[in-house]
Amino acid sequence: MLSEVPSFNQLLKLLQQVPYLASKNLYRVAFHFLMMDPRNLEQFCKVLLQAKHNLEQCSNCFNWKEKDRTCSLCSSAKRDQAIICVVETWQEFLTIEKTGGYEGVYHVLGGAICPLEGIGPEQLTIEPLIARVQRGVREVILATNQTPEGEATAAYIASKLKNVEVKISCLARGVPVGSSLEFMDRLTVYKALSERRPF
Amino acid sequence: MLSEVPSFNQLLKLLQQVPYLASKNLYRVAFHFLMMDPRNLEQFCKVLLQAKHNLEQCSNCFNWKEKDRTCSLCSSAKRDQAIICVVETWQEFLTIEKTGGYEGVYHVLGGAICPLEGIGPEQLTIEPLIARVQRGVREVILATNQTPEGEATAAYIASKLKNVEVKISCLARGVPVGSSLEFMDRLTVYKALSERRPF
Repeated sequence: MLSEVPSFNQLLKLLQQVPYLASKNLYRVAFHFLMMDPRNLEQFCKVLLQAKHNLEQCSNCFNWKEKDRTCSLCSSAKRDQAIICVVETWQEFLTIEKTGGYEGVYHVLGGAICPLEGIGPEQLTIEPLIARVQRGVREVILATNQTPEGEATAAYIASKLKNVEVKISCLARGVPVGSSLEFMDRLTVYKALSERRPF
Repeated sequence: MLSEVPSFNQLLKLLQQVPYLASKNLYRVAFHFLMMDPRNLEQFCKVLLQAKHNLEQCSNCFNWKEKDRTCSLCSSAKRDQAIICVVETWQEFLTIEKTGGYEGVYHVLGGAICPLEGIGPEQLTIEPLIARVQRGVREVILATNQTPEGEATAAYIASKLKNVEVKISCLARGVPVGSSLEFMDRLTVYKALSERRPF
């Protein structure tokens, strides 16, 4: 029956493009948009396009910034510009920023090396990172994910930096706060044990 | 830090309006839109506004239809116009339509009676339904949900139709296909037992 309402079909196809929208919710979201006040929907589209237009990636740390302003992180005097935390994507940047305990700056790689998906070092912002470190930095924290791809990326960056005089560190691996040892996987417990620290 | 990128904040607030988008996915969806080709994003907004502009609710069955066309269900010669299946919302219409086993037409109520949420019979399309039935219909299937609100709505419609000569039926209640009796709630098993049918 839906095939007889082409506008509706188009709307569904459109919403299918949106990631993280469960297919069983597509109809409900479509319904939401159709029931919206036309003015609000126009406003919705306007803000969406404006955000796209106003934001760009910082050419230094590759984080999002307003087009007509300097990057608030790279230009911040409150932040230690000599410590760079290297993260895969912008979501991980947010995760670290939410802890509220980091005072340095960031470098967003744009992903992790994954030859199977055709992502090599040249697809990521590794070269600008190396150049940035060479301009003089005290510490590089490799905060890539604890996945094979993330660890390979960290290893690649570390190898590229071996001739640069800089401290390279990575996140501590171990038992997450609030979890029971009993339910942890073997490798995590092993890492927590072998990388134990003074109490 | 995000407060220093107002365009981004606006984008997030915008996406928060979209229902069924988990808050933990908001950033990912925002990222998706920001990484989209500007032309594709414009196209996205265009299709969204077009769908909103082209679709309206049929004045007979209150289902969605193209503005410049007659409702494909209400005008279909293949459908039995004398059997009306009454559903709460458009999602339930789709659920029944997907079974492929229904040949009649529909009536979308727009919800169920719920005094606590301020939804009375006058907020729903019950009056047009009664008028529609009075114009001559063979059967009304009350396919509201098996919730207190849905059952109250069905009872209200049935009471309104008691002076109209029409067959009123409702969906069979019982054990869902593929499920074990053991895991069914008491009430469902009781209904399945008391409404048993010849084998």
